[in-house]
Amino acid sequence: MVARLVDSLGSTPGMAALFSDESILGAMLAFEVGLARAEAKLGIIPPAAVAAIEKVAHAELYDASEIAAASLRAGAVPIPFVKALTERVRNSDPAAAGFVHWGATSQDVADTAMILVLKQARDLLRADLMRLETALFQLSERHAGTVMLSRTLLQAAVPTTFGLKVAGWLGAVKRGRARLAGAFEEALVLQFGGAGGTLASLGDKGATVGEALAKEFSLGYPEAPWHTHRDRMATLMSMLGVLTASLGKMARDISLLMLNEVGEVAEPVAKGRGGSSAMPHKQNPVGCTLTLAAAYRVPGLVNTYLTSMLQEHERSAGGWQSEWPTISSILQSAAVAASAMAEVAEGLTVDANRMRANLDATRGTIYAERATIVLGEKLGRDVAFALVERAVGESASTGKHLVDVLAGMPEVCRALDAAALQNLRSPESYLGMAEVFRRSLTGSQPMRQQGPRNQGGREA
Amino acid sequence: MVARLVDSLGSTPGMAALFSDESILGAMLAFEVGLARAEAKLGIIPPAAVAAIEKVAHAELYDASEIAAASLRAGAVPIPFVKALTERVRNSDPAAAGFVHWGATSQDVADTAMILVLKQARDLLRADLMRLETALFQLSERHAGTVMLSRTLLQAAVPTTFGLKVAGWLGAVKRGRARLAGAFEEALVLQFGGAGGTLASLGDKGATVGEALAKEFSLGYPEAPWHTHRDRMATLMSMLGVLTASLGKMARDISLLMLNEVGEVAEPVAKGRGGSSAMPHKQNPVGCTLTLAAAYRVPGLVNTYLTSMLQEHERSAGGWQSEWPTISSILQSAAVAASAMAEVAEGLTVDANRMRANLDATRGTIYAERATIVLGEKLGRDVAFALVERAVGESASTGKHLVDVLAGMPEVCRALDAAALQNLRSPESYLGMAEVFRRSLTGSQPMRQQGPRNQGGREA
Amino acid sequence: MVARLVDSLGSTPGMAALFSDESILGAMLAFEVGLARAEAKLGIIPPAAVAAIEKVAHAELYDASEIAAASLRAGAVPIPFVKALTERVRNSDPAAAGFVHWGATSQDVADTAMILVLKQARDLLRADLMRLETALFQLSERHAGTVMLSRTLLQAAVPTTFGLKVAGWLGAVKRGRARLAGAFEEALVLQFGGAGGTLASLGDKGATVGEALAKEFSLGYPEAPWHTHRDRMATLMSMLGVLTASLGKMARDISLLMLNEVGEVAEPVAKGRGGSSAMPHKQNPVGCTLTLAAAYRVPGLVNTYLTSMLQEHERSAGGWQSEWPTISSILQSAAVAASAMAEVAEGLTVDANRMRANLDATRGTIYAERATIVLGEKLGRDVAFALVERAVGESASTGKHLVDVLAGMPEVCRALDAAALQNLRSPESYLGMAEVFRRSLTGSQPMRQQGPRNQGGREA
Amino acid sequence: MVARLVDSLGSTPGMAALFSDESILGAMLAFEVGLARAEAKLGIIPPAAVAAIEKVAHAELYDASEIAAASLRAGAVPIPFVKALTERVRNSDPAAAGFVHWGATSQDVADTAMILVLKQARDLLRADLMRLETALFQLSERHAGTVMLSRTLLQAAVPTTFGLKVAGWLGAVKRGRARLAGAFEEALVLQFGGAGGTLASLGDKGATVGEALAKEFSLGYPEAPWHTHRDRMATLMSMLGVLTASLGKMARDISLLMLNEVGEVAEPVAKGRGGSSAMPHKQNPVGCTLTLAAAYRVPGLVNTYLTSMLQEHERSAGGWQSEWPTISSILQSAAVAASAMAEVAEGLTVDANRMRANLDATRGTIYAERATIVLGEKLGRDVAFALVERAVGESASTGKHLVDVLAGMPEVCRALDAAALQNLRSPESYLGMAEVFRRSLTGSQPMRQQGPRNQGGREA
Repeated sequence: MVARLVDSLGSTPGMAALFSDESILGAMLAFEVGLARAEAKLGIIPPAAVAAIEKVAHAELYDASEIAAASLRAGAVPIPFVKALTERVRNSDPAAAGFVHWGATSQDVADTAMILVLKQARDLLRADLMRLETALFQLSERHAGTVMLSRTLLQAAVPTTFGLKVAGWLGAVKRGRARLAGAFEEALVLQFGGAGGTLASLGDKGATVGEALAKEFSLGYPEAPWHTHRDRMATLMSMLGVLTASLGKMARDISLLMLNEVGEVAEPVAKGRGGSSAMPHKQNPVGCTLTLAAAYRVPGLVNTYLTSMLQEHERSAGGWQSEWPTISSILQSAAVAASAMAEVAEGLTVDANRMRANLDATRGTIYAERATIVLGEKLGRDVAFALVERAVGESASTGKHLVDVLAGMPEVCRALDAAALQNLRSPESYLGMAEVFRRSLTGSQPMRQQGPRNQGGREA
Repeated sequence: MVARLVDSLGSTPGMAALFSDESILGAMLAFEVGLARAEAKLGIIPPAAVAAIEKVAHAELYDASEIAAASLRAGAVPIPFVKALTERVRNSDPAAAGFVHWGATSQDVADTAMILVLKQARDLLRADLMRLETALFQLSERHAGTVMLSRTLLQAAVPTTFGLKVAGWLGAVKRGRARLAGAFEEALVLQFGGAGGTLASLGDKGATVGEALAKEFSLGYPEAPWHTHRDRMATLMSMLGVLTASLGKMARDISLLMLNEVGEVAEPVAKGRGGSSAMPHKQNPVGCTLTLAAAYRVPGLVNTYLTSMLQEHERSAGGWQSEWPTISSILQSAAVAASAMAEVAEGLTVDANRMRANLDATRGTIYAERATIVLGEKLGRDVAFALVERAVGESASTGKHLVDVLAGMPEVCRALDAAALQNLRSPESYLGMAEVFRRSLTGSQPMRQQGPRNQGGREA
Repeated sequence: MVARLVDSLGSTPGMAALFSDESILGAMLAFEVGLARAEAKLGIIPPAAVAAIEKVAHAELYDASEIAAASLRAGAVPIPFVKALTERVRNSDPAAAGFVHWGATSQDVADTAMILVLKQARDLLRADLMRLETALFQLSERHAGTVMLSRTLLQAAVPTTFGLKVAGWLGAVKRGRARLAGAFEEALVLQFGGAGGTLASLGDKGATVGEALAKEFSLGYPEAPWHTHRDRMATLMSMLGVLTASLGKMARDISLLMLNEVGEVAEPVAKGRGGSSAMPHKQNPVGCTLTLAAAYRVPGLVNTYLTSMLQEHERSAGGWQSEWPTISSILQSAAVAASAMAEVAEGLTVDANRMRANLDATRGTIYAERATIVLGEKLGRDVAFALVERAVGESASTGKHLVDVLAGMPEVCRALDAAALQNLRSPESYLGMAEVFRRSLTGSQPMRQQGPRNQGGREA
Repeated sequence: MVARLVDSLGSTPGMAALFSDESILGAMLAFEVGLARAEAKLGIIPPAAVAAIEKVAHAELYDASEIAAASLRAGAVPIPFVKALTERVRNSDPAAAGFVHWGATSQDVADTAMILVLKQARDLLRADLMRLETALFQLSERHAGTVMLSRTLLQAAVPTTFGLKVAGWLGAVKRGRARLAGAFEEALVLQFGGAGGTLASLGDKGATVGEALAKEFSLGYPEAPWHTHRDRMATLMSMLGVLTASLGKMARDISLLMLNEVGEVAEPVAKGRGGSSAMPHKQNPVGCTLTLAAAYRVPGLVNTYLTSMLQEHERSAGGWQSEWPTISSILQSAAVAASAMAEVAEGLTVDANRMRANLDATRGTIYAERATIVLGEKLGRDVAFALVERAVGESASTGKHLVDVLAGMPEVCRALDAAALQNLRSPESYLGMAEVFRRSLTGSQPMRQQGPRNQGGREA
């Protein structure tokens, strides 16, 4: 168990509820009810058994602590769960007790219950991602013309726009959501194979029951039970890992832009949000912090999932049993990251003046490449390179703006007139494809024509 | 560097060649040649420069050790590489030297070179996967009726067929290959953004150059440069992780079936394959061993890739630089697993008699569930369960077959005639949906109708 | 949050209680009380404040859900916790409220609280490890002479003893416990540094308060606060990782020896332990399963801990915040593995006859190496090798015992008399150093003299 | 294989040489020579065999590519290696060929060879760590009084000193080196167990040979062979992981302090170091970048090592075979991080003025906590808190220094005289224990008295 306080930063209230004891119990009960219904319709078990099962299929009738304790002895949750359910059925209808869990195995109920939980988790996550995309789209549109420094290896590079930076985040989120939609669609399939994956105890009706059950839950019906073939779930976990990492990259960027000395953006301020227990003046990047914490945790959890996939024969000893906490933590981590970034994006304060001031504070060194090109067209690249190199050195030692230094060099003045020199110091005229790329990423204009294919999966 | 001997079990010859110094140099040279060609066509650089660059674009002209050593100082491979290329160009055509790498940044050449290598890797991997699928299909068809034990938690469960077991492996490989095809298609896009991701030094021609370049290499052209947005590559790495784990599951199963005491299958025997330096009698599961070793390594590498995705701003300090060895090891690991499993599947020896003998050695305890069902139809489930429980206990203490014990119980004989009793001990009549599922997985018959969707991506 | 049912296989009741909300709240309250006491003694805060704080320092007065929910907004548990505590103090003594948490920062209370929990966890874990060591020692002594197959790459190798096999497990557990004792000792140090790690708000009394506080809790007092230097904790997490993996290796071995076809050992049988919801005859390796599940999970968690160590400046945004669930899961996983293996070792059933039968079933091929040596002394190694190779082939094709085949070869009979030939088939006379190594590992006799040093840390 | 160019940022020249084919071959040859010598001395093999083996024990006589290719077939490097060695011995002395590798198994030569390589790696690594510690010590001493901002959650907190910050890095490196020394000492033990870990083919002389062999190599002699008990090596890998993460934390800090907008420190400048292929003005944090890249990679590799520890019985199928590239990459990563950070620390430029300017730029908000305390002593904490809160608000809206705002408030002026007010803005008088902690960490003065124990392992 990972207690609420221990993991208070690692989930959203909605996602925590989905992975709670009540929710898991509810999903397992839903499986057993669905199974009984399907089997009764096909004449495999008596209709009366369905009513008896339905009657006690309420999570609040069960003691999660007791079932959890017995699970540790049994090595699987469904064993004491089915026992507890059967007892309650027997109390009201002894004859029905014999038809509980008919033809199913522990893994059928456990896996399908988790799938049913994941189906709900998909909707929660998608809602936060949609909020995030909307906020990022608007932010990018609003700042299409806001000039700022690009930074490579944490050092000032050349000008870019905040609109493009935001569009980069948006592009990754959109691709991530599309992949996730595909992965959920693939993974949300029924588990139903009986003791050894052959449904033998249902004779020749196994597949018919399975199909009915899948329909009952609006789940896909797979080619066969997937007891020890966990690749669909692993794909889903991986895609959650990729998405969370993309959100982490966004959080990393924002937290760096929030440094006091940079001060280009700020997370929204609200009561109870991001303060310090010792320092009244602090305004911490709490949304970024939650997201980064999630992004640090998820790769190890994806790893665990992949590691536990080497499951032996028809049911694993250890691999399968390690999955639930891993799946639960991955989903909740992704959710907290999506939710935190949505809130951050919706309320982000952007200081365009500070962006410009930080750009200007580089005193033109960021135009060295550009000056070389412009001068090179007149003087040849080698001559130009040597001149600019000299100018960069002088700018560094004197603190003068690079363009001012260049303007003081006779060779430069002979090649470029005053207007051309002044243009050199305008970041707006050195943005290249920034707006083209921004629109392509946001889709705010018709997308650029593309190569064979470069977008993953389908839209969620 | 991970030397050949250190990693001799971790690659195939073909894949090792793809990730060799020569191949990487060749791919970087291809980028620079392609760039020059595209820029010359668009009138950005003089046509003569192209010829000068092409002339020295031969990997054997470069000293990989020297470039590697300088890379460690520079913090990036492309810096000394571009310098070495420029020097060679200058030697033959000084004027052309100024046009090398025009408008590009280090990450453009490094990333696109890796993409070009991955494009070749895709084909190598696909070929081995196709071999594997063919072998598994044939194996499954051949053993559609070969009865064996299913095993859960490493203990005998109920009968199944070897054909279904193989079909389960095949299904996972097919899904893995389909996902991989999608992930490669998404990831194989050009990287071209210049210093800060805006292509500013190319003025308004950046995107035109980029499109031409993508076309030259038959790569997709992305919405925008993806310098610090690594989700496409991360998806590819994850899908390689999922596939390798599926291969590892197959290797785990086969290695367990090869235990002397189980002896149901054996890897192919060949000179120099799977012996021991100390024990002449050993015939080791060498293909499974290579595959399992790969499957142990890949999750940690996928993890590393996800971890390094939190890349700062427009170029990362550390994240990006950690990627090449990770990518290289993941591809080679997946390749060695695919190749080893293909060889194993093609030459697997199957001992159907031993499968039957192991099944029979359980003395009918695997039919306890079945006996309960059959008797339950006549006597009610509770009476049946109590009878079978007693019989299981007697079978365990006396060593008699469960059906023989049941045949000695008057209550049972009254309920079931001799034929029904005998039928109880026939595994062939307790296979349920095994053949249905097998065909559905192998596609040897029209696939079962399915729910919303349960197969990932497209066929490779 | 990871709910009880979701993680029911991942903890022991005792360890789950230690990491519960109540326990965490209790530890944070203990920190605040201890701090107030130390500061009051040194005249920093008024003595009356201590009483007021003590009065409300009861976990049951706080609502963990409420604090958890507020933590998600605040980005840290201590912020709402200190607020809730202060409110309760203010209700009873408004003047005292100003002295709550005096001079401390969020991380001081959070880290020290976790350290106090870990101190208790150490004792729980040690108790199970001692139980395990005792059981393994006795098992090894009992089976010092029980001959069985050694197996390499899952294939029969040469004879060994079960006593040595068990001693190997014991040696790893002993080394693991010793390392853990050292790692706990190093990690159990106070965290106390105030807002920026200088304790500036306590003027020149910071270190004096810290020393008093460490004494109060019987914790070590470190050279300095370790807010973003997590190496001590990381070492502890890693050593838990190594120990859990050693337990996992033991579980792997036992689960393989329990295969129906091998049948050499069995986990203890008890009501509610290791059954199946579908198959009444199953007796699953439930202790091994729990341990393997733990061993699959821990490496990814250790990885997460190491990954989150790159903590910025004086307090991290993300790294630190990711730790609690990771630490909690590692401790609980190690505990469930230690406890499960202790129970398995204490009740393990060993079938020495089956061990011998499995050895005999190899029909002497495991003596091929030995025969080569013995014959080589008489005939020269090359001649011997050729003879044995021929004999191995004949044994394989005819099913005859290797020694019987050799006995039928004139060249062999000329070299070896009947007694020497018969001795060849005795595993007891081909055990080499098995008993010497066993005693050295168990310490059942004076340890062998050793090189520079080969045992980690101190005894727990 | 991971080619030089692919991993050019992931190793130092010295460490790469240690893990090269030549070095590995040399170590395996050393094992075989040492074994022959020990066995000849004990009369187990003829003395002439030693000379014959020594004669061909030169790495340059072997073709690493050929052995690597055959290893992939054999599933282990030693099998073709021993074959190649035996052939060369046979060519010069046919009789001696039969005594090559006498009594040893593949894993004996492979593991001991790796241990011999690790022994050399220890010295390389220690040398860089000593360089680093010396540089950090001097840097800390030099900047004992250099005041700067502490930063929590990437936001300005309270004043600290650069000397303390550096001492924090130093403390972690010292602890890391001490733990590493212990882990190396524990891990550097001989591997020698023969086919099944009993040395049976050496009769009663196994342990005597083993002891002689350990002595020959100056390695520890373990209680028993450790073929599938990898905990010693895992501990070493983990401690390398912890150390690399500590170096990564230092690199993270330095790279953040190097941001243009922060500008407090700079990596040393040198030709070929840290430039850009596109931007002449760039001076990148190349040492930090290499270190961060290493720190991103190592956790996943440690994870892999822990994952592969679940090795079956007496030799694993997969776990053991996955180790070499993992070990090799961990060592090289740790080495490149240690070396890069040593170079950075030795040449770090520190801009104390900029540190002061950044601190001053917070306009006194970092003294809010302090003002509350000082005023609280005169006015009561509640009154003080309200006043300071008002002042912080006014400072934020007007841009005035917090102390200037306070100086304009009559209530404040009545409580504090001008000198007390001015003192409020002096960071030097708000450093608390900074110097005490610094000295304790660096040991530049007698260490503070400590609790039970807080430093891991022994000094290297």
